[in-house]
Amino acid sequence: MNALPFDPTRPFDLVAIGRLCIDLNANETGRPMEETVTFTKYVGGSPANIAIGAARLGLRTGFIGKLADDQMGRFIRGYLQTNNIDDSQVTVDHTGAVTGLAFTEIKSPQECSILMYRDHAADLLLTTEEISEDYIRQSKALLISGTALAQSPSREAVFLALEYAVKHEVVVFFDLDYRPYTWKSAAETAVYYNLAAEKCDVIIGTREEFDMMENLYNEPGADDRATAARWFSRQAKLVVIKHGGKGSIAYTADEASHRSGIFRTKVLKTFGAGDSYASAFIFGLMKGEDVSTAMRFGSASASLVISRHSCSDAMPTRAELELFLESNEEITGAAY
Amino acid sequence: MNALPFDPTRPFDLVAIGRLCIDLNANETGRPMEETVTFTKYVGGSPANIAIGAARLGLRTGFIGKLADDQMGRFIRGYLQTNNIDDSQVTVDHTGAVTGLAFTEIKSPQECSILMYRDHAADLLLTTEEISEDYIRQSKALLISGTALAQSPSREAVFLALEYAVKHEVVVFFDLDYRPYTWKSAAETAVYYNLAAEKCDVIIGTREEFDMMENLYNEPGADDRATAARWFSRQAKLVVIKHGGKGSIAYTADEASHRSGIFRTKVLKTFGAGDSYASAFIFGLMKGEDVSTAMRFGSASASLVISRHSCSDAMPTRAELELFLESNEEITGAAY
Amino acid sequence: MNALPFDPTRPFDLVAIGRLCIDLNANETGRPMEETVTFTKYVGGSPANIAIGAARLGLRTGFIGKLADDQMGRFIRGYLQTNNIDDSQVTVDHTGAVTGLAFTEIKSPQECSILMYRDHAADLLLTTEEISEDYIRQSKALLISGTALAQSPSREAVFLALEYAVKHEVVVFFDLDYRPYTWKSAAETAVYYNLAAEKCDVIIGTREEFDMMENLYNEPGADDRATAARWFSRQAKLVVIKHGGKGSIAYTADEASHRSGIFRTKVLKTFGAGDSYASAFIFGLMKGEDVSTAMRFGSASASLVISRHSCSDAMPTRAELELFLESNEEITGAAY
Amino acid sequence: MNALPFDPTRPFDLVAIGRLCIDLNANETGRPMEETVTFTKYVGGSPANIAIGAARLGLRTGFIGKLADDQMGRFIRGYLQTNNIDDSQVTVDHTGAVTGLAFTEIKSPQECSILMYRDHAADLLLTTEEISEDYIRQSKALLISGTALAQSPSREAVFLALEYAVKHEVVVFFDLDYRPYTWKSAAETAVYYNLAAEKCDVIIGTREEFDMMENLYNEPGADDRATAARWFSRQAKLVVIKHGGKGSIAYTADEASHRSGIFRTKVLKTFGAGDSYASAFIFGLMKGEDVSTAMRFGSASASLVISRHSCSDAMPTRAELELFLESNEEITGAAY
Repeated sequence: MNALPFDPTRPFDLVAIGRLCIDLNANETGRPMEETVTFTKYVGGSPANIAIGAARLGLRTGFIGKLADDQMGRFIRGYLQTNNIDDSQVTVDHTGAVTGLAFTEIKSPQECSILMYRDHAADLLLTTEEISEDYIRQSKALLISGTALAQSPSREAVFLALEYAVKHEVVVFFDLDYRPYTWKSAAETAVYYNLAAEKCDVIIGTREEFDMMENLYNEPGADDRATAARWFSRQAKLVVIKHGGKGSIAYTADEASHRSGIFRTKVLKTFGAGDSYASAFIFGLMKGEDVSTAMRFGSASASLVISRHSCSDAMPTRAELELFLESNEEITGAAY
Repeated sequence: MNALPFDPTRPFDLVAIGRLCIDLNANETGRPMEETVTFTKYVGGSPANIAIGAARLGLRTGFIGKLADDQMGRFIRGYLQTNNIDDSQVTVDHTGAVTGLAFTEIKSPQECSILMYRDHAADLLLTTEEISEDYIRQSKALLISGTALAQSPSREAVFLALEYAVKHEVVVFFDLDYRPYTWKSAAETAVYYNLAAEKCDVIIGTREEFDMMENLYNEPGADDRATAARWFSRQAKLVVIKHGGKGSIAYTADEASHRSGIFRTKVLKTFGAGDSYASAFIFGLMKGEDVSTAMRFGSASASLVISRHSCSDAMPTRAELELFLESNEEITGAAY
Repeated sequence: MNALPFDPTRPFDLVAIGRLCIDLNANETGRPMEETVTFTKYVGGSPANIAIGAARLGLRTGFIGKLADDQMGRFIRGYLQTNNIDDSQVTVDHTGAVTGLAFTEIKSPQECSILMYRDHAADLLLTTEEISEDYIRQSKALLISGTALAQSPSREAVFLALEYAVKHEVVVFFDLDYRPYTWKSAAETAVYYNLAAEKCDVIIGTREEFDMMENLYNEPGADDRATAARWFSRQAKLVVIKHGGKGSIAYTADEASHRSGIFRTKVLKTFGAGDSYASAFIFGLMKGEDVSTAMRFGSASASLVISRHSCSDAMPTRAELELFLESNEEITGAAY
Repeated sequence: MNALPFDPTRPFDLVAIGRLCIDLNANETGRPMEETVTFTKYVGGSPANIAIGAARLGLRTGFIGKLADDQMGRFIRGYLQTNNIDDSQVTVDHTGAVTGLAFTEIKSPQECSILMYRDHAADLLLTTEEISEDYIRQSKALLISGTALAQSPSREAVFLALEYAVKHEVVVFFDLDYRPYTWKSAAETAVYYNLAAEKCDVIIGTREEFDMMENLYNEPGADDRATAARWFSRQAKLVVIKHGGKGSIAYTADEASHRSGIFRTKVLKTFGAGDSYASAFIFGLMKGEDVSTAMRFGSASASLVISRHSCSDAMPTRAELELFLESNEEITGAAY
């Protein structure tokens, strides 16, 4: 059990808003991208990955976003539909914007990097006119991710969606997902992240992401408990701070903390760990599991995805997740 | 008496942030600008005018803003200094920005218009790096005005100043001052106005400005009491809604409402009415007057300014204001 | 007599293309602009000034340009009409552009400076669609000035006008009029100046302007005769190089050179010297005078204008010019 | 033999300037890109392809261009070096620009399309400072292509290179290569294409490209002989007009015309036909072949490339070209 007030009468479990893009993952791994020759195309973008993961696990899921009017955009729509994600709120740009791209380079499990194409990306052209109050109030939860705040008009669209969510008591998850290349400065990022975060129920991010949000305001920083307390003084009921390989720690408003462990796996690449964690963690919470169990779901999903080639297409089904949990042991006791 | 908690130990009464620009008022009045030949130069910009008015009335005042590195910018700084406004937080742009201009046309007291030059204006280039937490916490009150939210990086600078003000219990006045020409869309405006207003103690605007803020969120609108209630549910303690020639109405969190009347005057132009009202109203509140008395100060100051050629240079001193109040009668009873 | 082949059958003597803007000249002279309080409004912009000067002297003149849809734009159109300049090719912007401004500061006759407002100026929005081949071929001569080459789409419009002029044997005057603030770099300027100049019949500029054009191409530079020869190898028939207070030198394709002297005058400011020179010089050439006489006209006109407050409104009529020439003596013998 | 005056004492045969980018060709052909899953990476861009083709055939080749500071940029440099193209004038952007991309879709040999990523492309950031007069005068010929004229500062860099080429009697080939997506309007394109073309010795383009150049100037258009004559009145010595599947026609300044035929091949896709034609045609001319023979080389090279998967990597060596010519018959007699 957890304290999040999901309204059981709503038709959608989770609506995600924001980035829909394309990953082009190098097929030849273990080498720099200068030497890779072929790439495989997948749907990508943090909220897209989380929505896909959530849908695979069985949540009734919708998406609010904007696609380029090209083959890449149509590929993404087809993939959403195939995964049973409602795409009625996914609009199409007609101004010549393109689909954002992420080329991945997998030199080794520890050395992964991404080459981004984000200029004139269609997803950042979502407008307030495309946000339906009626749609949002049909969902138990809304997922926003930080990249959609990076530019206008997408930023305003997300703030409007957030306002509707608050008004209609939709539980809001904020996956910080900070990607410096789409922002003008760290200060700009911190301002809008803070304005959004103070209205959210669950905030999930890395220690570095929380530091970025606190530095601008001269907060002392780097103390997980103080960070959590800061957000509990606003609207947050649950704050998850990720420490990379050292695992994660979740704080609840009752001052309790919960540490997640990890599952051993043969790591191919680290991409997708955060998104798969978030999707299974949200799934767990929405199924009424307690925070620790939901974190365990998250860790298991992450272990599955980082052993596979893609982020989105690698997301496990509920059966796969359960099988994995039954047949693998969590390693606890990470200390930091 | 009023409910605003001004901390008497602070050295500054009022710090204003935002636009500093130049008014060029046609000397030949009663005709279209096509036929005017000479112009007189004054300091302008809503927060600048309010700071000048407040300083003339005796408040210890400071300004946070940015000037162009040119003769217009230096003229503004000189004028602030002459009016005893602390300019230690007024920085200078070095990227080639210009000073915003407002050419005024006075066809008749009822037909006044402004021709704006706001492209590449220095005041909108204020950055978060130029906001001092220490300076803000030395003031009893902070005045923000809507124009400074129109563009990045000034927008982020104002949000940071606002956060510091909240943290240090500085009373925040928000003069909505909505000028469509610097904004991309009404939706963009409404998003940032709402994000700012929900952190402010006193919100002053016209009925149309409040409508603009409510329309985006599908609020029913146009009901003053409902508008005030909406903001009392956030941080506001006082909401002033202006109805042009019909006067203003102020709501306090105790559900009381206060109507202001007007003073008869020989109107030259309507420019500056709002800024002079705000400066004397704030002065009244900070001197511990009750809301109705402060509104009466505002109306008197407005009457003085609209009978004179400039906005800033026409602001009355305390002696002038008192003399006017003694020798003129307020007309009450506006009904709406 | 001069070698320029003006076609006597054409209805227009001179069509100018490019900048139409507003000068705001400080009424209080002999001080920095920080201390000036009032300004007088005049039509300005190099090609506008030259067209006005030429029309005052009696040439049948037209203008191709674009105005802002505001009071400043309408003031300019009225002034063109009053001065008998055909404005049928002067279009109006409907995208919100403004009228370019030039605030002048006259500290002393030797210390004059200009504060420009050129962001989003309507004149630079002239498009190729607004250039009429039929109009251009009705003129004996076309005047282009460098500022119109500074930005797209005005730049393309001028190149198209130039192509029509060449096709229909319209004599092209190029007043270099280099204003750094509208250009991105000296290299960009040099490229387009050279592409335009190589199609022109008469090129008029300062030594510094010709240097700027030659530096990029690694030409040795600073030798007037070599500069002239470079342009004679293209299309030029007459090259005028101005050396400020030292007077000007004109080269004709037959290798002859002509030096102009100056007239003593009580100088108020130096603005407008070049434009008034150009207008009377062109007038002289079009009336069939030899180069030296035309230069004498130019010097006389310049002397008149620099003793007066404006650039455009100060342009002499033919009667004024003749009276001045009769009653003043040219000082020759400038050596450089 | 042909009339082009290649200076035999120069160390380079051909220097190309402009676009260096990446092609991502769908591996799954015969279907829309929505259904393709993997892509293979090649060097692309018209001048890059022509330089690669020329180098493969044995010309001593150099390149002037700019690369992104990323894995794609380094891949391109490596490929140029492997193909013996001098890359000493290929600079690296340090402002965060990306490598231009072209995703290709091959539905059928007749239905090929390209999805371009050209926002913030590094190749368009080449500046005049990066153009070496000394390098250009070391080459017998310079190849420019139209895309490099699309934006500043690349446009100015190409005009400077062109000026150096004219000054040092480097033969200039202009492959029009008109790609609408990088231009603001057809009028803008036509202006700069014309300004460049009038300085070139050999102009190669499709009928549609020549029409675009003539439409703006109200030329009657669509008559090949008139088109050629127009350019012979400037600097051109050879004009090649391509009519797609109907073959090409070349005009020489002596009024002779030459028609090229085609070679039968199993067409995989049409991309690369123009670039391979140009590279072998230039090779033929530089080896002293007459125009008809050079055109035959071009047609043979095009036949080879359109039967293969890539554009650049498919370029034949001299041995491959000769073998093809020996073993295949040209089909002549195209009539239009």
